[in-house]
Amino acid sequence: MEITLESTAELLLQHANIVVTAHIHPDGDSLGSMLALSAYLTAAGKNVRLLLDDEIPKLYGFLPGINAIEQPDSRKIKADLLVILDASDLERIGRVKDAVDAPILNIDHHVSNTKFADYLFLDSRSAATGEIILRLLKFLKADITAAIATSLYTAIATDCGFFRYANTSADTMRYCAELIDCGVKPHLISEELESKPLSSIVNLSKILETLDLFYDGKIATITVTAETMADNESTEGFINYPRIIEGVEVAIMFKAADNATCRVSMRSKRLDVSKLALSFGGGGHAKAAGCTLNGSLAEVKAKVVAAAIKELQGMKHG
Amino acid sequence: MEITLESTAELLLQHANIVVTAHIHPDGDSLGSMLALSAYLTAAGKNVRLLLDDEIPKLYGFLPGINAIEQPDSRKIKADLLVILDASDLERIGRVKDAVDAPILNIDHHVSNTKFADYLFLDSRSAATGEIILRLLKFLKADITAAIATSLYTAIATDCGFFRYANTSADTMRYCAELIDCGVKPHLISEELESKPLSSIVNLSKILETLDLFYDGKIATITVTAETMADNESTEGFINYPRIIEGVEVAIMFKAADNATCRVSMRSKRLDVSKLALSFGGGGHAKAAGCTLNGSLAEVKAKVVAAAIKELQGMKHG
Repeated sequence: MEITLESTAELLLQHANIVVTAHIHPDGDSLGSMLALSAYLTAAGKNVRLLLDDEIPKLYGFLPGINAIEQPDSRKIKADLLVILDASDLERIGRVKDAVDAPILNIDHHVSNTKFADYLFLDSRSAATGEIILRLLKFLKADITAAIATSLYTAIATDCGFFRYANTSADTMRYCAELIDCGVKPHLISEELESKPLSSIVNLSKILETLDLFYDGKIATITVTAETMADNESTEGFINYPRIIEGVEVAIMFKAADNATCRVSMRSKRLDVSKLALSFGGGGHAKAAGCTLNGSLAEVKAKVVAAAIKELQGMKHG
Repeated sequence: MEITLESTAELLLQHANIVVTAHIHPDGDSLGSMLALSAYLTAAGKNVRLLLDDEIPKLYGFLPGINAIEQPDSRKIKADLLVILDASDLERIGRVKDAVDAPILNIDHHVSNTKFADYLFLDSRSAATGEIILRLLKFLKADITAAIATSLYTAIATDCGFFRYANTSADTMRYCAELIDCGVKPHLISEELESKPLSSIVNLSKILETLDLFYDGKIATITVTAETMADNESTEGFINYPRIIEGVEVAIMFKAADNATCRVSMRSKRLDVSKLALSFGGGGHAKAAGCTLNGSLAEVKAKVVAAAIKELQGMKHG
């Protein structure tokens, strides 16, 4: 059932024991939204647990309260409400689905939301779930501490590519202005998120050597092998290099997840890559999406590039 | 004489023939501010000429009206007022100084401003001269067209590193929100500015191979030779790679300008590199500065790195 922001606030106020979770492969928006909402709920006297069925990338270690996030185990968790943030599909929360038996409130901004929850607040015009959480906290007249503001700024800034993606709206900017008024230091957040180990910069040249162009230069790919990844924790941001090349419409990064699986990230200028990702069982936004496929890097690359060419041909004639 | 924003507006309204210029080595802020102010002045019935003693980087070709900017020649230009934007020193406008004989109005945000002008509006809290021009146009109740807004957004966004530098304030965000309301598409501006020719991405790996660390990893340098530059128009952004390495306090890029001269760009996290640049005859901001030195790449590198080490030692003990 789709509900209003007001009903979402009421629902949260009505329950005492609340579990907050978000999608696997966590990003700035899912983590920042979890931490901001739980900081408010805790201050409001709720008993809150933060669960996430994945490792937390070290990059987000600076977010206030991040160590409180637990991974679910086989034990069942009693709760009155399970709040699922920034996930458009129940499968996206992994084992948390089985660990918690409670009515589900889903707060999300993905247009691809499958409407699986008991209660859904969906606003696909928001650049980030963090924008919705800020609106919610303002409606609840919450005290937006510097810690909460830092989490929300990280959520919003990361999901709009630090104000470089098409989802960046005047509201996005105004929300971030309010968060700066609450104590956010934009450059400190940006330094944390941009900071890369020396090895990552050194490896960047190796990864750039894998640059490959297809379909008259409209598709650019890079490939990250397990060897390159050995001393390279994060591949965050590498996809931007093929993306910014003149004439490139679709950038794709292929990354060996393990021997039999590849993680695929896609970025585009005009083409809706969420459809492409969805066709391989993934998801995301029109201009930034991803999926995971079985197969070697070469196999997955051939398959996804062929599908991308087909989509681009469709766009041309459509 | 330092004047108020109100007096600055009056001064512009009083004169009919106005030349607008800005500093050499033009950037987004100087060009965007020139174009926004001149678009307003032209609409207000003024006779405006845009002069700049330098080439305009192709990157800014998308700015509305950019082709109207002329380079000065030996002919004298008659004008009632010379408006110098975003330049802290009279030397920074090159030959425009000699081409125009008129009272000077200087609008600037550099704390290092030498107060050379007849009339000066200086606000060093502004992230960009573009912010000041927006305030001026709002005070003048100007019609902020999508074209003017695009120039001002480019001015502001480039000078605060797309909202990643320490000068990014709540006001910066609010101004940009207003400009989005006036028709700016942030992602289109970002695509224009980020877009790089294929050769630039290919050369990036070569440039990353020149990465050098000094003073326990607190200084990171890259070097751009004339050979690397042969098929590489712009080195814009390369300095970010050494800058984001964990533990790096000062990033420096050395670029061969010609056989006998090197252009040096500096970025820092805490150290005031404008002092360092000033000691070599350059200038800039605390966290982003630059200078030009005579000598080979190796000579200039040795000299500047030694001075940077000294500054870092001073910071430690200071």
